[in-house]
This record gives sequence, C-alpha cells and structure tokens, in this order.
Amino acid sequence: MKTTSIVKVSKAEKSKLEQIDFDNLVFGKTFTDHMFVCDYKDGKWQTPEILPYQALTIEPSAKVFHYGQAVFEGMKAYKDEAGKVWLFRPEENFQRINKSSKRLNIPEFEEDFFFEGLNELLKLDKDWIRSGQEAGNALYIRPFVIATQPGVMASPATEYKFMIICCPVQAYYTKDVRVKIADYYSRAANGGFGAAKAAGNYAGQFYPTKLVQEEGFDQVIWTDDTSHEYLEEAGTMNIFFRVNDKLITCPTSDRILDGVTRKSVIAMAEKLGIEVEVRKVTVKEIIEAAENGSLKESFGSGTAAVISPIGTIGYKDKTYDLVKPEDCYSAQIKKGILDIQYNAAEDPFGWRYEVK
Amino acid sequence: MKTTSIVKVSKAEKSKLEQIDFDNLVFGKTFTDHMFVCDYKDGKWQTPEILPYQALTIEPSAKVFHYGQAVFEGMKAYKDEAGKVWLFRPEENFQRINKSSKRLNIPEFEEDFFFEGLNELLKLDKDWIRSGQEAGNALYIRPFVIATQPGVMASPATEYKFMIICCPVQAYYTKDVRVKIADYYSRAANGGFGAAKAAGNYAGQFYPTKLVQEEGFDQVIWTDDTSHEYLEEAGTMNIFFRVNDKLITCPTSDRILDGVTRKSVIAMAEKLGIEVEVRKVTVKEIIEAAENGSLKESFGSGTAAVISPIGTIGYKDKTYDLVKPEDCYSAQIKKGILDIQYNAAEDPFGWRYEVK
Ligand SMILES: Cc1ncc(COP(=O)(O)O)c(C=O)c1O
Ligand SMILES: Cc1ncc(COP(=O)(O)O)c(C=O)c1O
Repeated sequence: MKTTSIVKVSKAEKSKLEQIDFDNLVFGKTFTDHMFVCDYKDGKWQTPEILPYQALTIEPSAKVFHYGQAVFEGMKAYKDEAGKVWLFRPEENFQRINKSSKRLNIPEFEEDFFFEGLNELLKLDKDWIRSGQEAGNALYIRPFVIATQPGVMASPATEYKFMIICCPVQAYYTKDVRVKIADYYSRAANGGFGAAKAAGNYAGQFYPTKLVQEEGFDQVIWTDDTSHEYLEEAGTMNIFFRVNDKLITCPTSDRILDGVTRKSVIAMAEKLGIEVEVRKVTVKEIIEAAENGSLKESFGSGTAAVISPIGTIGYKDKTYDLVKPEDCYSAQIKKGILDIQYNAAEDPFGWRYEVK
Repeated sequence: MKTTSIVKVSKAEKSKLEQIDFDNLVFGKTFTDHMFVCDYKDGKWQTPEILPYQALTIEPSAKVFHYGQAVFEGMKAYKDEAGKVWLFRPEENFQRINKSSKRLNIPEFEEDFFFEGLNELLKLDKDWIRSGQEAGNALYIRPFVIATQPGVMASPATEYKFMIICCPVQAYYTKDVRVKIADYYSRAANGGFGAAKAAGNYAGQFYPTKLVQEEGFDQVIWTDDTSHEYLEEAGTMNIFFRVNDKLITCPTSDRILDGVTRKSVIAMAEKLGIEVEVRKVTVKEIIEAAENGSLKESFGSGTAAVISPIGTIGYKDKTYDLVKPEDCYSAQIKKGILDIQYNAAEDPFGWRYEVK
C-alpha cells in the first residue's frame, strides 16, 4: 500500500486521544478521530474521503432502515514492539465485503479506494494503536456499506455509503465460553445469505441467544435449519472440534461465513503438524465424543478473539464440560496466529500486511 | 382513537403539499409534512413526538447499520367521498410490529403511543390523502423501528427509534405480474425470522429477484429452503392459487409473513361463497394444474396492491400463462376489500377504523 492522492483528507481539529482510558476499553464503544467515507451515486463510487469522526445525516426513508441493505467487515491492525503497524490478510476482508455486497445487490467497492483509504486512515490514527500482544491491544477496523437512498419501496438502492470506522480494543473474551446447540432456531437458510456478512444475519440471532443466556450459556452453536443435525457456527464465530488428536471443522456453505480466522486456523494447525479434517460434523458424533471423553477441545474462531475456547457445550437438557488437555491445540494455534499478527514471528504464509 | 396530550407536536412551518404532483407519484418517494418519532432509552419509550419531516442524525456505529435490528410495517389510510379518513385493521399492524420486534429482541412499543401518534399524524397530514378508489389514491403509512445505539459489538441495542412516515400513493402494480418459482435461492430459514417484517428479510431477496428479472420475470415465488417443493410467498406478498373453483393458500409459519391482506382475502372469499383451503401447496400440483388447465388464477396479496394477479408462472425452463376466467375471483375479492377500505360498502367484519 502506498500513499496516493485518491483520498481527500480533512483532519480532525483536535484529537480525542488523550481522553481515552486504554486500560478500560469497552469493545466497540470508542472510536478514533477519523473515518473513511465514500458515496455511491450516479452509478459509481465517488471520491473517497477521510473526515473527522462524526454523526451521519440520513433520511428516515433510507433503504438501509427498511430493507436491510447493509454489509460489513471486521478486521484488526496490530502494532509491533518497534511501532510498525500491521494488518492481517486484509485482501480477504476486501474480497469478502464485495462477495457480501453482491449477494445483497450492493455495488462492489473499488480495490484501490479500499486499500488506500484504509492506509491513510490508519496512518492518521496510528497513535490509537497500542502495542501489547499479551493484553490483546489492537485496533478493530469496521468497514461497512449501507444503502442511503431514500424511498420506501422494496427494491435495491441506487445510493450507498461505504465507510470505515475504527475502535481501539483489548482482548475480547477472557473466560471459556459456554455454548448451547440450537435445536429450534437457526441463523441461515439454504439458498439464503448466511455466507454474507450482512447486517440482517445478526439481529435474528439476538433473541435465540438471549434465550440460551437465560439458561446460563453465552452463545448458540448454530445447526443447519433443516434437521438441526449438523454443527455449523458458534455465535458469530466458526467452530472447531478436537476429537482425539484430530481437529475437525465443517466446510463453508451458503449458510456459513467463510471466516478469515477459520482458514488461518486450518493453515496454522497443519503447520503445527495437527491433522485437520474439513467435513460435515454431526451433533450426534460430538455429543458421543463428549460422553466418551474423546472430545478433547472445542473452540470458536473469529477476528475479535482469534480463538475462543469452549468450556461447556449444552444440548437439550444436558451439559458437557471440556477440560483443556496439556497439549492444548487452541492455545498453540492462537499463539501461532497472534505471533504473526504482532510481527513477533516469521510469516511463512505471507499474511502480514504493513501499513506505511 | 381520540386526541390526547400524550404526543408532543411541533408543526412544520410550511407545507410542501402544493409542490406535489398527485397524478405522477412514484411509490414511496414523496413524504408528507410530518413524522412521528419516539425514542427508547433508559429502559423505556420516551415521550412520543410529531416533528416536521426531516433527516435523522445518527452515529455511524448505530447498531441498525451493523446488525440489522430493524423492523417495519406497511399500512394505508383511505379517504372516502365524504372526506373521512379510514385505516384498515391497524391493530393487526400494531400487533405484528411488536411480534417482529420480539423476534429481533427489540423492545415492544406502547399501544397508546402508536394509536394516538398515528391519529395525530394523520389529522395533521390529512390533506395529503386524496379520495379516489379507482385511481387507488391512498396514504401509505410506514411505521418502523431502528436500533440507534452506537457500538460495534454484536449484541442487542439499548436505544431505539420508533418512527412513522407517510407517502401519498396511487395504485401499485398495473399489469399482471410474471413470477418465477425459486429452486435455489430462499428468503427464510426454519427457525429463522421470515415471519417477522424485519429489514434483513428484504435485502436478501434483491439479488435473486434481479436474476429472475434478467429472465423477464418481475418477482420470485419463494419456496421452502429445504426442498423447494412447497410454494410459500410471491415476492413481498402472500400467494393464492385457484384450482378449479377452490382458492388455496399455504398456512403461515416461521418462514412466512402473516399478511393482513392474506387473512382479509380468506375472509372476503368465504363471504363471497368461495371455498378456501389453507394447506401446504406443492410446486408439483400447481405445475400439473397449470399444465392440465385446472389452475384458473393465481395472485399475490399485500397492503401495497391488495391483490396482484399473476399472469405468468415460470418454473425451471418453462412458463405457464394464466388467462383470467369470467368469474375472476381476484377481481371480486379485491373489489370487496377495496369497497370496505374506501367506505364504499358495509363492513361486516369491523375492519375499518376511522381517524378523527
Ligand atoms: C457469523 C460469523 N461467523 C464467523 C465469523 C468469523 O470470521 P472471521 O474469522 O473472518 O472474523 C464471523 C465474524 O467475525 C461471523 O460474523
Ligand atoms: C414478505 C411479505 N409477505 C407478505 C406481505 C403481505 O402482508 P400484508 O398483507 O400485511 O401487507 C408483505 C408485506 O406487504 C411482505 O413483506
């Protein structure tokens, strides 16, 4: 990435940085000084801009409010001990937001606008990124697209906003999560848009998640909506199981998000000499494995926490506790990925992307 | 409904009414002078207000943009020849928006705020409603709720806006629609939120709809996502088939919106002496009926058009044209409902609701 003049920059007059208590950040609540905005109208993406972070003025009839044309991404920037800033596989996020957009009939974004906008934005707000792999210090980056065209008719918009906003964050989940396997509710349909990172996929999860939270769980493990026999995702993460010494995860599909962390976990596990199997995973086999002790570990994978170990799995009326083995895969894989993200190790995969 | 002081009213300084060309309205593009707004915060709905119609100021991290917490309704007000204004079964829309909200973990709205807000709003903007059943003159009313709380973490918001905006409209579809039966894409999952009028359900339909439009159709007939063997909805309408002299429609489910027009069509058909069967409808039987000539009619039902006759059904590589019979059910039922809506006939069902 290089600096160019594609992006018009208006700097914030005064930074909010000194008001921030970096040791007490609530995830996703604190935003940096600037934001990236690019409008789509008259059939094309207009000049991208970086502006002081600010509220939007938007019509009450904007299609995003009524028809949910909205997609997003989640990625992170990390600062190494030398103060250099790194992104992790950003081209994956760029490709995925366009894939999501396509499924929602939103015009795809321009690659150079994305990368140059992101680069400019991170350079401007680089002091918001703290080093510190242990604490999980990072900048969470949220690119998103919303349909801004006014009009209450259910048809694709002709006007959109592509934006990038950023939050300083620390490690996400601290303790092992308790998850419950869905046997009634679902997050995605066959031939639906579960594979898109579309806003509409998330709101539908809140109510079923609240129901399991009332039973003492943190998240739902989503199953296929037809039979509820196949395990698909854990909350907003992809899901892995270690049965004996094999790591198993289901293939992606039109119901499942193709997670960047998921594919990184698979690659890192293989590098660590762990056997990985990508195939459909049934509820039955995992419950049996939990019962006979061959289920050694399970974890979710996602940008926010890299890996979230699962401590308890609930199914129907039963719960199964997992005790991490000595040669814990999740810890090894997580460290392997974090070391690359924070530039603390070689990067044989070419995942790291320097911001400069 | 009666006037009360629950709602705080700020009138627009100047009406836009005289700028409106009522003979050339584009559906959903022109809004009246006022809007209804009620904020949810600190665990409750605050004082509802009527304000001059205006843009919203909203944070880029508002949860509606990222997680799609947004539900809406569609209803209409009609003016009779004496100048009285009528709503059609508004308590159904009120109950349904709360049902939709519940599924998306949005706090339910207050009944008196809704009815008194709506009443005040329609009284203020009553000159925007034209009489004229033939032209289909009416006021389209769009209540909706959006999550306004800032923050990019995937959890239910604690702040929302309930709004009502209104558009003068005329008859919606003019010609018979061409629909194609879905055999790959779907709009809703079992255990999903297809039965909610949630923003997220609509964006997902645009791309599959565009694909059939490229083949010369107007809309998709949605089928169940598991087998694509059952017919469920037509675009954003419920669907009816007349096979010989029987009117058939599928039952509602967690994948299908419980349409107000659908239940009104069923009641009106029965009143007209038409036999109605509510049961699952297979693609196979309808294609066979189309082939052997027993499929006499098919139509979609929804608030916007009441009834939209289907002229052509496409399935795989074939298309089936429907020629309306002399004793056309859809025309009789539509007239029966419109006469009640416009106060041009008795209302044995108690559907009409006077605004005063
Ligand atoms: C539904 C869902 N599944 C999986 C993931 C994990 O994807 P990634 O590893 O790219 O963050 C996410 C996003 O974090 C998600 O929203
Ligand atoms: C998906 C869907 N189905 C059916 C309908 C018809 O519902 P109603 O008759 O209440 O307008 C609508 C809304 O118009 C809809 O959005």
